[in-house]
This record gives sequence, C-alpha cells and structure tokens, in this order.
Amino acid sequence: MLKTCNLAAATAMLVAFAAPVLADPLPSWNEGESKSAIIAFVEDVTDPASEKFVPQQDRIAAFDNDGTLWAEQPVYFQGLYALDVLKVKSVADPSILSSDVLKGAANGDMEAAMSKGVEGLLEIINISHSGMSVDQFQSETHEWVSTATHPTTGMHYVDMTYQPMVELLSYLRDEGFSTYIVSGGGAHFIRAFAEEAYGIPPENVVGTEGETKYEEQDGKPVLMKHGGVTFIDDKEGKPVGIDRHIGKRPIFVAGNSDGDFAMLEYATSGEGPAFGLIVHHTDAEREFAYDREGHIGVLSKGIDEAEKRGWLLVDMKNDWSRIWTGKK
Amino acid sequence: MLKTCNLAAATAMLVAFAAPVLADPLPSWNEGESKSAIIAFVEDVTDPASEKFVPQQDRIAAFDNDGTLWAEQPVYFQGLYALDVLKVKSVADPSILSSDVLKGAANGDMEAAMSKGVEGLLEIINISHSGMSVDQFQSETHEWVSTATHPTTGMHYVDMTYQPMVELLSYLRDEGFSTYIVSGGGAHFIRAFAEEAYGIPPENVVGTEGETKYEEQDGKPVLMKHGGVTFIDDKEGKPVGIDRHIGKRPIFVAGNSDGDFAMLEYATSGEGPAFGLIVHHTDAEREFAYDREGHIGVLSKGIDEAEKRGWLLVDMKNDWSRIWTGKK
Repeated sequence: MLKTCNLAAATAMLVAFAAPVLADPLPSWNEGESKSAIIAFVEDVTDPASEKFVPQQDRIAAFDNDGTLWAEQPVYFQGLYALDVLKVKSVADPSILSSDVLKGAANGDMEAAMSKGVEGLLEIINISHSGMSVDQFQSETHEWVSTATHPTTGMHYVDMTYQPMVELLSYLRDEGFSTYIVSGGGAHFIRAFAEEAYGIPPENVVGTEGETKYEEQDGKPVLMKHGGVTFIDDKEGKPVGIDRHIGKRPIFVAGNSDGDFAMLEYATSGEGPAFGLIVHHTDAEREFAYDREGHIGVLSKGIDEAEKRGWLLVDMKNDWSRIWTGKK
Repeated sequence: MLKTCNLAAATAMLVAFAAPVLADPLPSWNEGESKSAIIAFVEDVTDPASEKFVPQQDRIAAFDNDGTLWAEQPVYFQGLYALDVLKVKSVADPSILSSDVLKGAANGDMEAAMSKGVEGLLEIINISHSGMSVDQFQSETHEWVSTATHPTTGMHYVDMTYQPMVELLSYLRDEGFSTYIVSGGGAHFIRAFAEEAYGIPPENVVGTEGETKYEEQDGKPVLMKHGGVTFIDDKEGKPVGIDRHIGKRPIFVAGNSDGDFAMLEYATSGEGPAFGLIVHHTDAEREFAYDREGHIGVLSKGIDEAEKRGWLLVDMKNDWSRIWTGKK
C-alpha cells in the first residue's frame, strides 16, 4: 500500500483532514438575522485577526435552563417532579401531608401547591428533595426525566429540550467556548441529565442549592440532601452564582425571562464584546406562546430593553425549523 | 525542500512528534516511594488497558491550598493580608478600630487578633474584605501577594508556593486531569493568583465565600463584596464544596492538615481507584516543621490513619529536592 509521494503533499493531506468541516453548525435555525448574528459574533471573537478576538479561556457561555434549553410549561418540570415524588411518598406514609399545600400538591393540584408562595414550595421541597443522598436523588431524577411523561405533550421530559439550542451549545464548544448552565432550578436536579441532554458536565452546572451535609450512613461517608434553600440562583442571584462558580464574566448569555435580566445585563456591560440572547416563546402551535403575563417565565423588561441593549430576541416560531430534540 | 518519501514514513514521523516526551514529570521530587507511588497511580488510571482506567472526564484532582500548595506559617497568608489592609484603612480612618481585636490586628498583634476566635476574625474580615468590588479586591490581592514580603523569609508570598506541588499539578493536567483548589481560604483571594501561580483558572477554585451582591455603582452594575461568611469550605465543608462546584468525587486529593481529612476520606471511599496525599511538614530548615500541635495546620488524625487508609504521607524534608518556586 506504499505510494511514492513527498512530505509536503503528505502534510497537506493531514492538514486537510484537520480543517474544519464547512457544514451548517446550526441546521435547525432558519436562515435569517438571528442565525447570522450568532454566527457573526462567534466568528469575530474566535478570529485572532479580529479586534474582537477573545482568548479561549475567556470564552464563557452561560445558559438559563427552564424555557431556554427545555420547556417550562405548564409549570417548571422540577415542580412536576416534586409533586410526583410527594405523591409516591404519601402513599407509603400519608402522615407527611401535614398541610393543605402538601395535600394539594400530592393530588397534583398545582394551584393549591402554589397558594402559599415560596413558603409552600419550601414545604414541598423539604419533603421531595431531602432525606436521601445526592447520588440517590440524581439517579431517581434521571429515571424520572427519561420515563415520566409531560401532561400535555405526552413526551418524556428529556425529549422536550430544544434542538436549536442544543446545536448552539455544541457549536459554541466546537469554537472553544466553555458552556455553563446558570439556572434558578436545582443544581442537583439539572446535573442528573445535563451531560446527556446538553453535553454539559456537572461541574458546569450552576443552580439553586439546598442544604447538603457530609455524614455517615451505614458506616459509609455520604453527601445527604437536607431540604431548605441555601442559595437562590435567580434574578440578581445569577451574576452572584456566576461569580461563585466561574469567577469570570461570560461573553455569551442566553435566557428567556426577566429572571435572566441581571445575568444578561452583567454579561453585556463589561468592556469586551458580548452577546445577549433571549428565547421568545412565540410558537403556540409547536411549543407554547407567552411573554408579559403568566405564572412562569414572564418576559417584559427583556422585550422592552432588548433593542436598546443590543440583545437578540429569538423568535421561536420563525427562527427555528425544529423545536424538540425528541420526536413528538 | 521536497524530498521523496512515502506516506507511511511521513505518518510515522508525525506520530513520533506527537509521542510523549519521556522527561521526568516531577524533577523536584527525589526518587523514592512517594514519587513512585504517585507516578504508578497516574499511569494506572490513564492506561486504557488497566483495570483501574478512569475516563478523562472523571479524572478530578482536588488540592488544598494553605500548607499544601504554599506555606501557611506563621499564620495563613490571607490573615496577614487582612492585617495589612486593616492597618492601611485605619490610618485613613482610625474610627474603624472599634474593638480590641481590631486595634490589636491593625498593630500586627496576631494574638490579640485571634483572641476572640471566629467572631473576632469575622470583625477583621468584615472590614478588610468588604466595601469594594470583586475586581478591585482581586487586583489589590494580586498586588499584595506579588509585592509584600513574608515576615520571616523576606520572600514575596507568591514565591512561597511549593515547586514539587506545582510540578504535580502540571503533571496531572498533562495526563488529562482537571485540577481544582478546594481550600478553607477565600475563593476570591485565591483566584487572584491561582492561575499564574498554579495554572488553575478561577472556575476551578473552590473556597470559603462571603456575601457578594450584584448592585449598581456609579451607574454600572458590579459585584460587590459585603463581608460575612456564607460558606465555610473547611473540614466536613470540603466534600460539600466539592459537591456544589464539581459534582463529582475526585480521584486524587492532596491536603496537609486534619482540615482536609473529610475531603481525603470522601475521595478515597468511593468504588473506583483514588489517591490520597498528605504533605507532612518535616523540614524545619528549608520550610517549617509542625504537625500534631500548633495554631495552624494541625495534623494528627491524618498521621494516625494514613497507613490504614492507604494515603501517602509526603515527607517534605526527604521527598523534595527543592521547596520554593521562587528564589529565597
């Protein structure tokens, strides 16, 4: 199989193999301003000859999760998970339903579950998200997102991630970005599926945190979940979460609600180039349509200020040719 | 410059270029059991043919900082920094010295500064580590570790990092490990120099945390330090800090005091292979000699249990041919 050739030609061949494939990095994004703006930014900050060049170690991308990487209607999926767990636990021990909030929640009555606000949600979390090791919690969560079904689409939750956003994450990583999740959802919950679903490993998931303690169980040291909330990674908490976990200002941030406003503002108010992206839920047919009003994912300030601040408002209906990673 | 050859030969040449250099990865470690044990472990977990093979994404290494990566005598360097800051601030405004602890601290009287325990230290931190942005704090810290001098060696603090440990970090990274700091010291403080000193970027520094808030200052959003302590990354807090920031059990852990015991125990009580290392301060001549007694870095349980638990006790005096990265 030996062929006569020359070293220059052999090298050229090997270089050709290593050259980037020119396939469309965002196939589920329709051609248009949104897609062009994303690609133009990425090409700018990765081009050593560009004034906007950003060295690889500073290419930090931070993505919200609920409503940005996967759906969040009719209510945050982690809330649905909590209700399911409460139901199962209360069958084994009905005495745990010691309040109207808990009774309503175990019956799947979301309105009752949310009737006492944060205090009531904490009651639910203190039962559904505690009393087990982190490993056990994550293995149960992984099982749930893969097998339980969504009340209106009938899909598995893990299939309700957005294909265009998964492509965007992958594109950014291919271009030397480190991709992080910065979510108001629980870090332990998201870590249970983020690597499989988004290619984002546990160490790159920043989220809300509960009390975790290092204790002995059956003679083995273990990390146990103890309910409560020690850090809320939402609104003004998101830049704080970024500081705690990353310690650098992201240059690419994506969100979908006013809960992401502070994070978008923080990322795009530094000195260098930065890209702010807001997923606008405009597709009632294929997904859900909502913005200024509602109980989840309210987006109002973001719409009002996006243009002024140079943030991209992604129009799900027109910008995306496909919504779900999974089949409906 | 074209030479006739064949593709196989050209490929062989390129493969040869890519082959690992066989230089000693730990030149400041004397030949002996300690060095051999480290290298044997690393070779095992990185060899795909070995039963102990660990995939790259799970090669997590966690290192304590004070007394493990740099010195910690006569007192934690961050404490000396706090006293220096307090002194400077009190010259500008003597009224901040509102207690005996603060007065003693500003005069460099470490005994007075520590006389009220944690409560007194918090008083000092609340003045020296708050009221400025994270960026400003880190720029001042960076200046201090690079220019202030140590009371007994006269060296700059940043030169008092341990050359053998810096080599170990670098060796682990070359072998596909992600290296983290997991320290009882402040995360913001350590991040100010960890990348330059150890090659460890901000996102891989886990430490004690104070209150940080996202606020507006002079019309610009900024992360401000507000004193207090929201998380203590020490003792049983270290496995919790690892869970919060990394979400995986490390397979290589290094510490030097009983404050690292829980982290060593956690890492080495999993199912797969794991390596625990304790730096034993045995070199009164070149560094400091201390273990079971003292006010800093007490190591007692670690010595008693190292053999039983299979942890390596590194003997600084005999295992290291060189101590400091900087010149004395």
